[in-house]
Amino acid sequence: MKGWTRYFPILDWGRRYNGGTLTSDLVAAIIVTIMLIPQSLAYALLAGLPAQIGLYASILPLIAYMIFGTSRTLAVGPVAVVSLMTAATASGIAAPGSPEYIGAALALALLSGAMLVIMGVLRLGFLANLLSHPVVSGFITASGIIIATSQLKHIFGISAHGENLPALVGSLAGNIGALNPFTLALGVGAILFLFWVRKGLKPLLIRLGLADRPADLLAKAGPVLAVLVTTLAVVGLGLDARGVETVGAIPAGLPPVALPGIDPGLWAQLAVPALLISIIGFVESVSVAQTLAAKRRQRIDPDQELVGLGASNIAAAVSGGYPVTGGFARSVVNFDAGAATPAAGGLTAVGIALATLFLTPLLYFLPVAALAATIIVAVLSLVDFRTPLVLWRYSKSDFLAISATILVTLGLGVETGVIAGVGLSLVLHLWRSSRPHAAIVGLVPDTEHFRNVTRHAVVTVPHLLTIRVDEALTYLNARWLEEFVLEQAADRPELRHVVLMCSAVNEIDASALESLEAINHRLAEAEVRFHLSEVKGPVMDRLKRSPLLDALTGTVFLSQYQAFDTLSADPSAMDERDGEGMDVFENAQLYFHARGLI
Amino acid sequence: MKGWTRYFPILDWGRRYNGGTLTSDLVAAIIVTIMLIPQSLAYALLAGLPAQIGLYASILPLIAYMIFGTSRTLAVGPVAVVSLMTAATASGIAAPGSPEYIGAALALALLSGAMLVIMGVLRLGFLANLLSHPVVSGFITASGIIIATSQLKHIFGISAHGENLPALVGSLAGNIGALNPFTLALGVGAILFLFWVRKGLKPLLIRLGLADRPADLLAKAGPVLAVLVTTLAVVGLGLDARGVETVGAIPAGLPPVALPGIDPGLWAQLAVPALLISIIGFVESVSVAQTLAAKRRQRIDPDQELVGLGASNIAAAVSGGYPVTGGFARSVVNFDAGAATPAAGGLTAVGIALATLFLTPLLYFLPVAALAATIIVAVLSLVDFRTPLVLWRYSKSDFLAISATILVTLGLGVETGVIAGVGLSLVLHLWRSSRPHAAIVGLVPDTEHFRNVTRHAVVTVPHLLTIRVDEALTYLNARWLEEFVLEQAADRPELRHVVLMCSAVNEIDASALESLEAINHRLAEAEVRFHLSEVKGPVMDRLKRSPLLDALTGTVFLSQYQAFDTLSADPSAMDERDGEGMDVFENAQLYFHARGLI
Repeated sequence: MKGWTRYFPILDWGRRYNGGTLTSDLVAAIIVTIMLIPQSLAYALLAGLPAQIGLYASILPLIAYMIFGTSRTLAVGPVAVVSLMTAATASGIAAPGSPEYIGAALALALLSGAMLVIMGVLRLGFLANLLSHPVVSGFITASGIIIATSQLKHIFGISAHGENLPALVGSLAGNIGALNPFTLALGVGAILFLFWVRKGLKPLLIRLGLADRPADLLAKAGPVLAVLVTTLAVVGLGLDARGVETVGAIPAGLPPVALPGIDPGLWAQLAVPALLISIIGFVESVSVAQTLAAKRRQRIDPDQELVGLGASNIAAAVSGGYPVTGGFARSVVNFDAGAATPAAGGLTAVGIALATLFLTPLLYFLPVAALAATIIVAVLSLVDFRTPLVLWRYSKSDFLAISATILVTLGLGVETGVIAGVGLSLVLHLWRSSRPHAAIVGLVPDTEHFRNVTRHAVVTVPHLLTIRVDEALTYLNARWLEEFVLEQAADRPELRHVVLMCSAVNEIDASALESLEAINHRLAEAEVRFHLSEVKGPVMDRLKRSPLLDALTGTVFLSQYQAFDTLSADPSAMDERDGEGMDVFENAQLYFHARGLI
Repeated sequence: MKGWTRYFPILDWGRRYNGGTLTSDLVAAIIVTIMLIPQSLAYALLAGLPAQIGLYASILPLIAYMIFGTSRTLAVGPVAVVSLMTAATASGIAAPGSPEYIGAALALALLSGAMLVIMGVLRLGFLANLLSHPVVSGFITASGIIIATSQLKHIFGISAHGENLPALVGSLAGNIGALNPFTLALGVGAILFLFWVRKGLKPLLIRLGLADRPADLLAKAGPVLAVLVTTLAVVGLGLDARGVETVGAIPAGLPPVALPGIDPGLWAQLAVPALLISIIGFVESVSVAQTLAAKRRQRIDPDQELVGLGASNIAAAVSGGYPVTGGFARSVVNFDAGAATPAAGGLTAVGIALATLFLTPLLYFLPVAALAATIIVAVLSLVDFRTPLVLWRYSKSDFLAISATILVTLGLGVETGVIAGVGLSLVLHLWRSSRPHAAIVGLVPDTEHFRNVTRHAVVTVPHLLTIRVDEALTYLNARWLEEFVLEQAADRPELRHVVLMCSAVNEIDASALESLEAINHRLAEAEVRFHLSEVKGPVMDRLKRSPLLDALTGTVFLSQYQAFDTLSADPSAMDERDGEGMDVFENAQLYFHARGLI
């Protein structure tokens, strides 16, 4: 039973469900539904998809998350960044709005869902670590700028396209002559109104006597108000006859539930973007879920979250939707409105389904500019140039990562931007790992402690060199280890003993083991013995299964003090017999090291 | 001047050049030339290129390495694994032997050369660390098997192709009916002779009175003998008229020196293979160079080696060659024959140039089966199934890496094989990095030392939890850090203080800093103070430039003993005023963590 509830968290919370939680969930669901209707339409627009696709993506995916998700309050659905990534990918396949374009968005949801489920079952959630905070922050800032710029065409009533900032700006500038003044007035009005709602409405409502929480929730309903007012303006002033673009006819009725077609060629094209969408969506969603869970002392399971989001995306794919993930603002609203269980998400899905059935005729005269305005105001709050400044002071390599991510995303588009950010972070990490911290250490007088000779007044002996490495020895630093130890030894003609102090070495992998063997052998050629000290238990267990200990010309000392005590009294050269049998070993070494090429 | 000699090592050793070194170099050059002629022809064959391309790749590249290389004894030229990788890539572009195929091989050399030079100038040699020893070992074993199998067609006198083992075996099996018995007899004879030369010739020569070293060098000339005898057999028995394929007419004369054409479309196709060829070639070459240099107490500079190998490949590209790198067997021969400076390489180039001018007519009747036999015998010594067994005992994750590399290379070809090996090693590394070693520690009685509570009898206090993390805190483990600390804290209701003991923390990057801020904040919500102890100097300098120290609810203690001493006496709950001002911080936190999606 434990196993089942792990994969179906609904079996856990569902058994304790009662009237009290139902009431809480119902209130939250109503509020989130009202907020989600204009959002779903707007993000479908951003993704280059017909408006109803946004509604479809807000029904079945929520039910799937209710069954498989572990967060009590996460609200799943279409979100800005994933919509932008969908648009960037699908527009490389077909013309926006065409059946092939919609098919590509659907296939993206399917692939991304399958990838998330597989990652969840294989417990690969740690791969999300590849997205460092600077990369995520930079990516989202740049995406916000691209999204806001891409929506300006709807505010101006002109056409424009491009997956990156220069292309978008160029396209906008080229078409600005066709500007529609009525559209512009509506769009700018909506933007100003929405900014005022953000800053001024809540204080006003509180001054009018409302309590803090309802005032906050009402202020968050600003976009609904903007949508209502602008729709009425279009109808009342007949603006649709004056070239103001509206949403138009939306097919009423629930989404068609059907298995998406199988198209391996298309899937191959979409594999990388689907992976990026999966990981970006997961990282963001899990951050929101963790933050909200911690506030109520609840727990989420990141690996099961992968399954939950994967199921949501597969649900989107079989019900005419497009990629979804957990959204920040709507989850906070859900949380603040008192959602007690994932059932709030299920009830929201029912709300959206009812809206899809009965409200779509009302959306006919909704101006696209009003939806664009809600997107612009929402995404501009994502743009953050403070973090790069903070990082500049704190860490130059993190600053490099965030700047590269921002610039590449703006200049070359979202997909290249994420890849560049992740790639650069990895390269910087590998660079640091290839040069771990190490110190020559000596004895602190009258103690048994050993410290860095360059920072402390310590005792050393000319024929004894002790090196402490402060990191696991792996293939990333094996070559460095060999170079560092041999370089240090080469500078000391009186040297007879080298001790590698392993107090901070948690691992020695096969590549590092080989480097230790090479060090042992090269030092033996110079008649210097090689010793180890303070090897940790698990590392020693493994070394006992390797040929190193047999070949070692020196000893493995339990403590560094014991090594120092024994060896500082023994300045004698290595016994010649110790060199015997090394030739076989040497040949093996050469063979293993370099047998690659004839 | 120091700067110039760094990039042109010839300026350093060239100034000390004299008659003694010239004599040594000349002897070595003659021996290596004799060895290199059949090798160059054979590897060109393996690469699917006309025989003379192998000779061309053994002239100018050697001159370039003489100028830019830092190894005294490395012998550069066509090698088995790189030839196989060239064949695998070029056959995806055009039919073997066609002008487009030769052009692709040339472009590969150019791209690979340019990449190596750029990596060298940017000092990116550390990227070669990505190839762990198990991956290199597995890759070479699998390549050896593929190469040997691919040459069987020449032994059987049939045609066959395929980039991986199943395809090759299938193709061979399908065409085995067309087997030519004369070719088979020649080929099998040559293989048996060459195996005998490896095992039996040297002892025989020594018994005949030769000294060890000349006997060794003569035994290495076995392939030359095989080539001579089989050529005479073809001429004497008229085997060419009986269907035995020979090398045929080779255009005499030096290679045409010309800039290769610029073809961005082709370059884009070749970029990934060129990068793989560069890195594989570099890793192998530098291992050989380092091993040989260490034997004579010489030094090589890996970053300048990148420049040297890059220059060699560019030289190959402008003189009708194909990708080259430092070869193992020929470098050992060069070393053993007494090469004193890189001029030995230059003199070898002169030898090959003379051979290209005057000896090519003699190669007309050289049977292809004899060349295939030299390749098969050479590469089978690369096949090594002992290492996987050793790794199985030593480290399961290294075993996984080597097995995956062998299986994917055999099953899907060399390019996919390297990528799979490197990718899997990285994933395993990321997985380990995402779960660093950490311990709850307590005071060892009557000392100031702190040790793991699960392994030692130590003193702890219920309201105080001390966690020691044994690794740098980076984006790869930031999420883990947050989860681990908060999980440990959640299990202890009496808790008032958490101390993070940072004695092994060499770095805290921006992502980990944010996790520390989140931990501080979440613990504060539970009225638990968060402290640090034993923060290293450079890490502390950085923390002082961050907002963490201002927000910290606890103290940064210089020593863990001081922390324990102070806090074990203070079981009081956190002062309520400390919670003030946290709301702003909390919002900032939530914002930064999760502001991605609306």
